[in-house]
Amino acid sequence: MRTVYVNGEYLPENEATVSIFDRGFLMADGVYEVTSVLDGKLVDFDGHARRLSRSLNELEMGNPLSREELLEVHRELVRLNGIEEGLIYLQVTRGSDGDRDFAFPDPVTTTPTIVLFTQNKPGLADNPAAREGARIISIEDIRWHRRDIKTVQLLYPSMGKMMAKKADCDDAWMVEDGFVTEGTSNNAYIVKGNRIITRALSNDILHGITRTAVLRFAREVQMEIEERNFTIEEAQDADEAFTTSASAFVMPVVEIDGVTLGEGVPGPVARRLREIYIEEMRKAAV
Amino acid sequence: MRTVYVNGEYLPENEATVSIFDRGFLMADGVYEVTSVLDGKLVDFDGHARRLSRSLNELEMGNPLSREELLEVHRELVRLNGIEEGLIYLQVTRGSDGDRDFAFPDPVTTTPTIVLFTQNKPGLADNPAAREGARIISIEDIRWHRRDIKTVQLLYPSMGKMMAKKADCDDAWMVEDGFVTEGTSNNAYIVKGNRIITRALSNDILHGITRTAVLRFAREVQMEIEERNFTIEEAQDADEAFTTSASAFVMPVVEIDGVTLGEGVPGPVARRLREIYIEEMRKAAV
Repeated sequence: MRTVYVNGEYLPENEATVSIFDRGFLMADGVYEVTSVLDGKLVDFDGHARRLSRSLNELEMGNPLSREELLEVHRELVRLNGIEEGLIYLQVTRGSDGDRDFAFPDPVTTTPTIVLFTQNKPGLADNPAAREGARIISIEDIRWHRRDIKTVQLLYPSMGKMMAKKADCDDAWMVEDGFVTEGTSNNAYIVKGNRIITRALSNDILHGITRTAVLRFAREVQMEIEERNFTIEEAQDADEAFTTSASAFVMPVVEIDGVTLGEGVPGPVARRLREIYIEEMRKAAV
Repeated sequence: MRTVYVNGEYLPENEATVSIFDRGFLMADGVYEVTSVLDGKLVDFDGHARRLSRSLNELEMGNPLSREELLEVHRELVRLNGIEEGLIYLQVTRGSDGDRDFAFPDPVTTTPTIVLFTQNKPGLADNPAAREGARIISIEDIRWHRRDIKTVQLLYPSMGKMMAKKADCDDAWMVEDGFVTEGTSNNAYIVKGNRIITRALSNDILHGITRTAVLRFAREVQMEIEERNFTIEEAQDADEAFTTSASAFVMPVVEIDGVTLGEGVPGPVARRLREIYIEEMRKAAV
């Protein structure tokens, strides 16, 4: 039985509830973060805390906890649930004023709802899926146009995972106006020679915390980075491809829409970046 | 204190909760309906029940209650809360399997969550706002592209209402590729002479239950209907404009982006359609 956190209380997971009037439930009026745990410590906590603040700010939502309080709750959940490797999920919603209305409730009288829970994932770093590489399909990107805000409007990414599953694949990349935006829950990259190509930041994609770190490490080992749009055809023709996310770190991609990339095994650039990322993040974890 | 309905139980509203693992809360993986009550009876109940089934079907979600059970719960809530005029809100989500995953949970072991509650609105039919008419702004439509499914992904419509509020207006119409799609929570219409112009049904807009009824009544009184796209400029130049929704019926629009329509008062077509709609719906209510 997990212990989870809801609005200041540590509770058994089966007693953790929110009001049916919570705007997170009624209107998807909420944002989230997922932070990894390695060796019982938090990976890039400050990156996630900063992005949370940004998301809340974009939606004119209050931040219910300070950075220090947030860190304390994360650590307490890790401790209470004995997490060595895993994830901490955090969600903040605009809360509930006890009824339903499209207009935001008065922020003076309505406090945000905050929920955190752990997911125990032994073997997160030494993930066998990363040794195999992911097989992906492409799907149309029909999501809303503020994907830089990490909202809980995840129905389409969820549908995308199911489309991938039905196609006997692992994940889906989304395509808009002919160009790849991102994966259902990760940023997308292709590799040509020593050059890593990934879509530039905008409202079209999530500003991945893992993306920022991986690109920094790539630059440090003299890889070239090209931030620009690419198509599925270009990806199918690339030497390698991979995705990055807080929960899967760097995940090699070996097949796109039925086309095998290179030898059909994880490429050297993706493997190396995964290694560096995990190694550096272990060192910096708090 | 309202009595609400959650998964088979009638509960005081302050005890009505859902799990933090409910997919409605974590992923906006849910759909909803709003049915009006006039004279203590349900307006167009079957229209809403049918659209609910369609939404659930599009998302491969089960329907937790039959039409008869749904009707019974609606009526019981009207009775328990003494609603003469008001709304009944209904939401169905994919439920919770006790954890978070993008992939849908097994539908055999995970049952949908169903929540219903009433909103008492005395004066719903004789709404003074309908005598004044609404002043609206236009905003860009950045929502996802399956607006025909009535999902709880309402963050942007909610933001739109706030943008309208800040502009000292009542509501917003959304514009995509230069054409009006719909209002934040209603379908949009303009009137030129005896002709009513409204966007045709597609994935771009909600298939309004009130829209269907109003267009039927309009045809019965020999008004012409033209289902096609229109721009904000055309709307500003129209004789009249109005919106339809289950909660506001037919609502005249008297100003668009600061431009007054006609005399700046509700036009005869919108007023007549509102009258007919309420009269006919009172007769047919169950």
